[in-house]
Amino acid sequence: MEKVKTILLNKGIFSDNNAEADKLRQNLEKEGVFLINVMSSPGAGKTTTLISLINRLKTRFNVGVMEADIDYDIDAVRVAEKTGCKSVQLHTGGMCHLDASMTRQGLEELGYKGLDIVFLENVGNLVCPAEFDTGAHLEIMILSVPEGDDKPLKYPLVFQKCGLVIINKCDALPYFDFDFEECKRRILNRNPKATVIPVSAKRGDGMEELENYFIKKINGKEKT
Amino acid sequence: MEKVKTILLNKGIFSDNNAEADKLRQNLEKEGVFLINVMSSPGAGKTTTLISLINRLKTRFNVGVMEADIDYDIDAVRVAEKTGCKSVQLHTGGMCHLDASMTRQGLEELGYKGLDIVFLENVGNLVCPAEFDTGAHLEIMILSVPEGDDKPLKYPLVFQKCGLVIINKCDALPYFDFDFEECKRRILNRNPKATVIPVSAKRGDGMEELENYFIKKINGKEKT
Repeated sequence: MEKVKTILLNKGIFSDNNAEADKLRQNLEKEGVFLINVMSSPGAGKTTTLISLINRLKTRFNVGVMEADIDYDIDAVRVAEKTGCKSVQLHTGGMCHLDASMTRQGLEELGYKGLDIVFLENVGNLVCPAEFDTGAHLEIMILSVPEGDDKPLKYPLVFQKCGLVIINKCDALPYFDFDFEECKRRILNRNPKATVIPVSAKRGDGMEELENYFIKKINGKEKT
Repeated sequence: MEKVKTILLNKGIFSDNNAEADKLRQNLEKEGVFLINVMSSPGAGKTTTLISLINRLKTRFNVGVMEADIDYDIDAVRVAEKTGCKSVQLHTGGMCHLDASMTRQGLEELGYKGLDIVFLENVGNLVCPAEFDTGAHLEIMILSVPEGDDKPLKYPLVFQKCGLVIINKCDALPYFDFDFEECKRRILNRNPKATVIPVSAKRGDGMEELENYFIKKINGKEKT
């Protein structure tokens, strides 16, 4: 395994982030790379879920991971150690989200050629990351049970944008007042096309369904 | 009880938010109003904690509450119903934080004269709200056990700025891998002057200590 790099990203200089994101998306398509932007609140279990998922996907696909944080170096090392996949740590220099230019810097440092899938673990934040197109082909989010079933009411944009909502920490359902069916209804109300998959990344529940979702999505390379 | 208003805030027009925040803070001091900015991740239990705390403080102080959300109307009604206190709902129009100008608009709609304490429940976000001075006399945050004990490592600024860190959902400690002493050490590493109080707002544990903290703080009206 290569040493895990930490990269301090520079804020994008492009005035039109959407155009820059479209360009990046097309560049990645030409190389056969499918980029997935993973969003969630702090502590929803992004890294644990990704490690579990990547260990299932890595027999079929070459996977790379970019771990974005404001100031922390542990996640990328943890992913590399637990999955053996290529991984880089991105520091946003205080920024609350990644834009397309920052994502491109990360991809260049990661070395994306030859990869089939790159997961971008965005900064833990339900507001700002949803506002910036990173150039990803698929936006997904992780909502964890302890956060509550009202989050689709309070943070509309991220639920509208995500093709997949993973509901994590389902092993904690007995200890929290969380109505899964009501939450799913609220998610579909924001985005009728969303797929909702309950999992416990820690215990492994639901991970096969999640694996199958990605196999289908990446083989088809559908844009959502 | 008065009807609960919902106000759509306008983004501040002032180039110098810090100067505007200082001005607001001084205006409030003249009126004897102590403003507390409450920050947390989505779903850490801000509203539940505030309801429990206000029901303890309201026998000594006149309390008002501003509930800021991107798009949601339930929290201010819930606070008003459960505490009987003056409450307004603030909509940020998609914004991820409040600045001093937005806070002033909210205070004017709330009607702050005659109040001793106003709680501002900021947007659920550990990044952006910490970057903008709202004019508050005290910054506090709520970290919940399911989010994990590594949050002080990942979101440094909010921990540096907060004079009080409430660790909520302590009733869930048996179900999560959360090292309280290690978390406290990490918080104090970011901010050696921080007070750390563990609570379960749902079950009531730790609420007396929290009440005493605020009685002392508000009677002394110390600036932190």
